[in-house]
Amino acid sequence: MTFTIGKLALIGVGLIGSSIAQAARRKGLVAQTSVATRRAETLEQARSIDLADSYHLDAGAAVQDADLVILCVPVGAIRGVMEEIAPRLKPGAILSDVGSVKGHVHRVLGPMVPEGVHFVPGHPMAGTEHSGPLAGFPELFENRWCILTPEPHVDREAVSRMCAFWRELGSDVELMSADHHDMVVAITSHVPHLVAYNIVGTVDDLETVSKSEVIKFSASGFRDFTRIAASDPVMWRDVFLTNRDAVLEMLGRFLEDLSVLQRAVRVGDGEALESLFTRTRAIRRSIIDAGQEIDAADFGRIQRMSGDREGEGGAT
Amino acid sequence: MTFTIGKLALIGVGLIGSSIAQAARRKGLVAQTSVATRRAETLEQARSIDLADSYHLDAGAAVQDADLVILCVPVGAIRGVMEEIAPRLKPGAILSDVGSVKGHVHRVLGPMVPEGVHFVPGHPMAGTEHSGPLAGFPELFENRWCILTPEPHVDREAVSRMCAFWRELGSDVELMSADHHDMVVAITSHVPHLVAYNIVGTVDDLETVSKSEVIKFSASGFRDFTRIAASDPVMWRDVFLTNRDAVLEMLGRFLEDLSVLQRAVRVGDGEALESLFTRTRAIRRSIIDAGQEIDAADFGRIQRMSGDREGEGGAT
Repeated sequence: MTFTIGKLALIGVGLIGSSIAQAARRKGLVAQTSVATRRAETLEQARSIDLADSYHLDAGAAVQDADLVILCVPVGAIRGVMEEIAPRLKPGAILSDVGSVKGHVHRVLGPMVPEGVHFVPGHPMAGTEHSGPLAGFPELFENRWCILTPEPHVDREAVSRMCAFWRELGSDVELMSADHHDMVVAITSHVPHLVAYNIVGTVDDLETVSKSEVIKFSASGFRDFTRIAASDPVMWRDVFLTNRDAVLEMLGRFLEDLSVLQRAVRVGDGEALESLFTRTRAIRRSIIDAGQEIDAADFGRIQRMSGDREGEGGAT
Repeated sequence: MTFTIGKLALIGVGLIGSSIAQAARRKGLVAQTSVATRRAETLEQARSIDLADSYHLDAGAAVQDADLVILCVPVGAIRGVMEEIAPRLKPGAILSDVGSVKGHVHRVLGPMVPEGVHFVPGHPMAGTEHSGPLAGFPELFENRWCILTPEPHVDREAVSRMCAFWRELGSDVELMSADHHDMVVAITSHVPHLVAYNIVGTVDDLETVSKSEVIKFSASGFRDFTRIAASDPVMWRDVFLTNRDAVLEMLGRFLEDLSVLQRAVRVGDGEALESLFTRTRAIRRSIIDAGQEIDAADFGRIQRMSGDREGEGGAT
């Protein structure tokens, strides 16, 4: 299909904004891209990789005449950005975002959206632990999911254009309510990040085991947690400030289950342990089968020299 | 250096035993390898990849005349194996193991070691989430650490031969007490595995979010946990049964810290959250700098097509 946007405006050019700009240009989806960011230094980085056609420190100027505006800033910054851009949004434009929390985005931005502007919030479930314009790359959204959470009354044509946009970037798209989205990400993303941040923090504070020992011996499990615990601190602060209820609900479940497991360790209940550990193995298989994980031992970290051992432990 | 073992006996040919056999042969360290395992089917798998010179269902027969015997079975199985092999161990032989818990190994095996046999317990900190002989590969130990925990009275020559053996397989070697080892692995390995098993189990039991949704959207964080939660269930059951005190101690720390974090989320303490999330980022950098993790975004999962974005988000 041919899908063209006259002018795309991206407010924020971190990992996600930068990747959208690169992907949209590569796919030939946009005639013109403008980007805005608050810090001059970040804007220079964007310019250094030729990310857009125009560069702005003023978000309002960037959205002028834009057909599609996507807010790519931490969730905590959306209100301020919206105050700047709302008066400059073109009637008929689509306004979207990429925030990891959607209930908050609806509550804050919903009442601020000018009449005639179509509000289609989104959440591309893609990223790496790196941040900033230089961390972006055009393949980021390929084979990932993007969730859109428009209110039922929103213009169908606008929603279907946003679906098409994300599909062109390589993503699968799913529509759901903002509340359900927030519950889904609380367990698939927010609680895992919280737990990872927490265990990395615990290690930082130990006395009986030195930090250098943890670093040395981290390949035995710990290092897997450090990847997501290296994600952008401000973005994640805002996630926990704005998705509090769903996070606390899912964290409560996690803690309940952990108490049961702690007790199984304390009383030496081998059957309970083995039964859980067997059950969890199957879930990874399902994720691999769903194409959401690579089928290689150790995330493919180990480069295998011999090509003849690709049976059980096979590489992708 | 030239280091040769006349006969190496491996009891157990899972991921670790199989990898030792393959690495030792490739490096030309052994004149002869015998392997033993309880199940005929596993032995056939070992034979199918030509793992050894002789194959046994009787561990006692395998250790006959062996100069180095390494137990590569789950920690819970060592007592039974030792009963079979103790009368057949050659005087002057070195007896070692690869168990993830060392205090228990010392307490159980120590008193059973025949006079004249040198007992040098070890723990190669290497592995993948796959198991069985076919999952083994000779590069598994390269650039990994192996911890040895011999008692102070053990023959120095035997200890230094074990150090040399692991170095030849590509590992760095460190000596420490069994108790300290167990504390180190409790935090670097056992609690991370327990937490990963737990969160994967929590997901399995939810009603508000379907399992298929978790699988679909797992790339947003959850899937990182599923790798270690796919590790061998019996091996891990035994780890938690035999390293109980250190695990409960470290789990207690983790839970204390998590309560503080939970409270920060509940009261909306953005400063506390951002400060922790900033601190944890540095630890991953240290692990990468120590050569214990690859320096690629998203564990290098994403194959980058463009070669010009290797700055901040750079590949290895």
